[in-house]
Amino acid sequence: MIITLSDVAERAGVSRSAVSRTYTEGASVSNKTRNKVMKAARELGYTPNIIARSLATSRTQLVGLVINNFQNPIFLEVLDQFTRLLQERNLRPLLVNLTDNPDPADSVQMLKQYRVDAVIVASSTLPPECSLAFKEAGLPVVNVFGRYNPSPDVHIVGIDNCYAGATAAKTLQSRGYKSMGFLGGPESATSTQDRLKGFKEGLKSLKLKPTCVCYADNYSYQAGFEAMQRMLAEHHVDALFCGDDVIAMAALSAARAAGINVPNDLGIIGFNDMEMSSWQAFGLTTIAQPITDICQSTVELLGNLLENPNRSAETRLLPCQVIERDTLRAAPDCS
Amino acid sequence: MIITLSDVAERAGVSRSAVSRTYTEGASVSNKTRNKVMKAARELGYTPNIIARSLATSRTQLVGLVINNFQNPIFLEVLDQFTRLLQERNLRPLLVNLTDNPDPADSVQMLKQYRVDAVIVASSTLPPECSLAFKEAGLPVVNVFGRYNPSPDVHIVGIDNCYAGATAAKTLQSRGYKSMGFLGGPESATSTQDRLKGFKEGLKSLKLKPTCVCYADNYSYQAGFEAMQRMLAEHHVDALFCGDDVIAMAALSAARAAGINVPNDLGIIGFNDMEMSSWQAFGLTTIAQPITDICQSTVELLGNLLENPNRSAETRLLPCQVIERDTLRAAPDCS
Repeated sequence: MIITLSDVAERAGVSRSAVSRTYTEGASVSNKTRNKVMKAARELGYTPNIIARSLATSRTQLVGLVINNFQNPIFLEVLDQFTRLLQERNLRPLLVNLTDNPDPADSVQMLKQYRVDAVIVASSTLPPECSLAFKEAGLPVVNVFGRYNPSPDVHIVGIDNCYAGATAAKTLQSRGYKSMGFLGGPESATSTQDRLKGFKEGLKSLKLKPTCVCYADNYSYQAGFEAMQRMLAEHHVDALFCGDDVIAMAALSAARAAGINVPNDLGIIGFNDMEMSSWQAFGLTTIAQPITDICQSTVELLGNLLENPNRSAETRLLPCQVIERDTLRAAPDCS
Repeated sequence: MIITLSDVAERAGVSRSAVSRTYTEGASVSNKTRNKVMKAARELGYTPNIIARSLATSRTQLVGLVINNFQNPIFLEVLDQFTRLLQERNLRPLLVNLTDNPDPADSVQMLKQYRVDAVIVASSTLPPECSLAFKEAGLPVVNVFGRYNPSPDVHIVGIDNCYAGATAAKTLQSRGYKSMGFLGGPESATSTQDRLKGFKEGLKSLKLKPTCVCYADNYSYQAGFEAMQRMLAEHHVDALFCGDDVIAMAALSAARAAGINVPNDLGIIGFNDMEMSSWQAFGLTTIAQPITDICQSTVELLGNLLENPNRSAETRLLPCQVIERDTLRAAPDCS
């Protein structure tokens, strides 16, 4: 038997409207009435139907969470953060996997059907048009790990990938490395393009150029390993900036397999500081993205957007940080 | 402006009921009428409201996906599989993170509010009462990675952890190891208990006993590394069955750090065959859980449950397999 709002109203001896107001956040209802309603609801085993209520409030408290990379372990940390932070705000993540079908049209349609309150697109590899498609369908959207744009179409939360790339160049040079290569993620990803751009600019300011520029087909270990093998066959570098930790761990493994001493003969700096970078098998020196802060800032921005969907699109860039481990030589002693 | 079903009916020159039937799976409507409706809907930019429709069909096509471990990379593979398989059936995963609040009461309440069609509890560490709580609230539920029970309260899809434990014992003995230890996940997890039980039974059938039994506090690398350090300080073993690949990778790293040669002085067999077990830094010999088949079988069972929610609870156990890599000695040559 389904217990309805009317059943609760009857048992509590109050109006249907009083029951409805008890379950609507921010609605006015006296403590006395609320207590009567809650008692009757408990006794009857009543659960308010958010789905039905959404027709009146036009809020479902559902948030579309769109991801297209389940091969990169960093996204488990991202999913953990987002689910917790959304739950804290009584928002619920409807998870969308774009791996098989990167065309956003179907997802836009689907998320509209569920009348989600907003969408988080968590990807640095989807083109900006993807996030824009959600916006054009009338859904508030934040693109996490998106590209900095001085006049963005949609809200962006992430990092300054150019600046981070320049940091990598300066860090490698400060450790005495001379011929520095770039091993990025997919060439089409804006994150790859910007990290490379910054890396080149950083080298240029030191009157240097990258020795070589190579790409993995995607942000996965296997792709990184194969790309590193190709690079080692064709180029000689003594240091490498990798576009991602998964690629850096693969490059480190391929270098070891080729008998190369890291960090003495080859320095490697990664990107992300995902948990396994700190595992003893890798001990990867890397540039940390502040994942927790990025997710926190995204959910806060989302909260603001729900209050004011027409707020103009902003970019929030959070600072990265070099995490020192074992894949770069120590800085020369200047004493 | 919100486009309604009535707008579409008017433009298409058909009844509201005809529009509604066009968007209801399995409802009867002529091709001619359907085409008129689809054309009008396209022209007006109409999206049917699944939320509203669910009040009539009592189907939301939402499935609660409950997870409590975001530290173990295997769950990224699990999430990838489930999201794809559910999407193929036009079902949508509402992701619930129980890390902070393992009491299922709040999640039961929340998923009931959203009128989810069913729930997948993907965990081997949550107690059976957790899945039961969803069932008692009237929600069809499948516990993936749950414990085999000859007369289960809820549907279970997973593996025979006892049998797999016995396989580990026999595999280690067949490689000439003599003193075999167990390094499990959390002692309270049914998966740990059953893998240990099978391991002991397997050893017993060979007239052996485990040299030692140790536990990591949870299924994470850090916990595994610390547990292995404690074990090495207190016990001497020449082979180890680890309750999970993350723990096995941590044990391997701790053994290397202590100067122990794997596989000659210490054999290690893991559990799961998660992607990174095959990475060159580990090359872990392990017992593979058939994750893809488990997820596939779960979603099929879920489809059946949606047709017939009162179907009695069944257990589906899928076969595991030893994956040979580099952390066990080769089998002795019998020629």
